[in-house]
Amino acid sequence: MLRGDITAAIRRALMQELAAVGYGRLSIEAVARRAGVSKTAIYRRWGSKVELVLDIVAAAAHGKLPALDTGSLRGDLALLFQVVAHALRHPLASQIIPDLLAEAARNPAIDETLQKVLRARQQEIGGHMIELAVRRGELPADTDPEAAVDLIVGPLYWRLAIARNPLSDSYLETLVEAVAVGLGAGAAVPRPRRTAPADR
Amino acid sequence: MLRGDITAAIRRALMQELAAVGYGRLSIEAVARRAGVSKTAIYRRWGSKVELVLDIVAAAAHGKLPALDTGSLRGDLALLFQVVAHALRHPLASQIIPDLLAEAARNPAIDETLQKVLRARQQEIGGHMIELAVRRGELPADTDPEAAVDLIVGPLYWRLAIARNPLSDSYLETLVEAVAVGLGAGAAVPRPRRTAPADR
Repeated sequence: MLRGDITAAIRRALMQELAAVGYGRLSIEAVARRAGVSKTAIYRRWGSKVELVLDIVAAAAHGKLPALDTGSLRGDLALLFQVVAHALRHPLASQIIPDLLAEAARNPAIDETLQKVLRARQQEIGGHMIELAVRRGELPADTDPEAAVDLIVGPLYWRLAIARNPLSDSYLETLVEAVAVGLGAGAAVPRPRRTAPADR
Repeated sequence: MLRGDITAAIRRALMQELAAVGYGRLSIEAVARRAGVSKTAIYRRWGSKVELVLDIVAAAAHGKLPALDTGSLRGDLALLFQVVAHALRHPLASQIIPDLLAEAARNPAIDETLQKVLRARQQEIGGHMIELAVRRGELPADTDPEAAVDLIVGPLYWRLAIARNPLSDSYLETLVEAVAVGLGAGAAVPRPRRTAPADR
């Protein structure tokens, strides 16, 4: 195998092992066996199990979210909910992230990396979507982006990752409306208010 | 030790071990050592590690939530948020539940018990609080209690258990208002609408 191939094979094997047995029971030996490489090949690249796992998480976090700008806050919310619902079906979200969140309570290095990734994502979503909505005059100028992200991401995360109830299209429509109104957008008249300074 | 004392000691030791090492690495031997009992004493009561853990979760779920009826939806939300914020600081919520949620992805017995507990809690909160608010005329009669619970519990869970950002009083006030309005309560005029049939 070429160098890059070996690294990719190890990463793939790690994801599969993590999903199958969890961080606590994960052994470098099993990852090596699954990847078809020697333990030395792994230790040459990563010093320890923690480093290997953190590297994967950081790599996964580099995948950019699609830019959300459908022209309205409600449209942006609907699109984001679809992206989030899709992402929460990936094993990374349903098995590996919960495992690492649990581990983070015991391991400061994992905790720090996860928080960095989460904060960056929050920033990306909150900063961008809220800023657009404020500029369009849909949300008050003093909207707190961090609190907004809690309201935007929380309900769907709770439903899919914790309570694990199914989604329906009508549920998502109701949620879009509830979150938009909760954020401070006017009630559901499909005519956006234009009270912002005309900077566009 | 008396019989009941031994059971209590084992339960306590299990909670501490779970918080310290997580489900994956938990050994009955370590629990026995911490509880000061023999492994046999544990196996006499519970057949396996899974059974022991499930028993604890089920027992924790028997603790009743305080009945929430402050006279208004906003008051009930504010009180619930305080209860939830407090509960999420307990090791059971911050270390053990995330661990079991991760394990649930791999273990149907854990999955089923957790879901049963969560559903019961949802029912308790959603059914009760939403029903009261509907009766008071604060919420529309067709409010879906399950979707309502997502909106009520999701943002705070996301903030405290996942993003782990701190809370402030003003944050909680904003959240109460956002959730109330998002659920369909009228905007923040501190005079509740009375449009429900006079059944009280």
